Amino acid sequence: MARVIGIDPGLQHTGWAVIDSQGSSIKFLGAGVIHTLPGNSLPSRLLQIHNELAKVIVQYCPNDAAIEDTYINKNYASSLKLGHARAASILTLCINGLIPAEYPAKVIKRAIVGSGKADKTQVAYMLKFLVPLAGELASDASDALAVAICHSNYTSADQNRIAS
Amino acid sequence: MARVIGIDPGLQHTGWAVIDSQGSSIKFLGAGVIHTLPGNSLPSRLLQIHNELAKVIVQYCPNDAAIEDTYINKNYASSLKLGHARAASILTLCINGLIPAEYPAKVIKRAIVGSGKADKTQVAYMLKFLVPLAGELASDASDALAVAICHSNYTSADQNRIAS
Repeated sequence: MARVIGIDPGLQHTGWAVIDSQGSSIKFLGAGVIHTLPGNSLPSRLLQIHNELAKVIVQYCPNDAAIEDTYINKNYASSLKLGHARAASILTLCINGLIPAEYPAKVIKRAIVGSGKADKTQVAYMLKFLVPLAGELASDASDALAVAICHSNYTSADQNRIAS
Repeated sequence: MARVIGIDPGLQHTGWAVIDSQGSSIKFLGAGVIHTLPGNSLPSRLLQIHNELAKVIVQYCPNDAAIEDTYINKNYASSLKLGHARAASILTLCINGLIPAEYPAKVIKRAIVGSGKADKTQVAYMLKFLVPLAGELASDASDALAVAICHSNYTSADQNRIAS
């Protein structure tokens, strides 16, 4: 069994979700969003992401991790901000012994809905079907749950290939 | 007296330099460059920056820190990489109790040479004059030394204003 933490990174909103997965079986454990204030300094916002994510790791003790890969944003300033936020999450995971796998948004959508072109509503609808116990989640937490499930699907498929 | 660590961030090369400063007096303590391999994964490169920078902090015990502010790069992918590297350094400083001040390249050049439009050769020439004991430094370590001296100048000026 793997306990996977999924991360949807962002400087203002970082979504996280934790699941237990065994083969195709998924159990929802928790999800949430770390919010930082745009008025605060960049260092204090990165430290806040680190501190709150570290608390989640201590609380749920995941043994595997995944994070959404960054698409190349057409706004330079947004790319920079996202780069900072992603690194804060990645480094916090690494410091806690979790080297995250990275998945592009298209791969995550394909893992949940079956199409890399699915929109957010379709992904949210399928997540409710796959993990009804998660209930109503904030958008960023829902995206993080999709990341965790995507990773769980890929690692299960790998294990099946190794076993066969 | 302040012991300042200056950082010139980059995913492939992160320069660092440590000085003691008291008023206009500067004492060079050490400098170097953290190199990461482009072939390694992003998480492992960020963790390497974190681990090596943390060792420098333990070795020199700085009580103040500064980092070069990011200019908006016209290449999205480069902006993203720089964002990741900067965040790894900033977060490592913060975790170690050092909230770094941020200075744009123009401000750093003006602090060293007197002009924000100075080129790298002019900055390196003035650094040799200001801190002869630093000797020949690698380009990224030299840039980090400029960041540390810039911060030292600004904080000394602030202290003089408070004192007067």
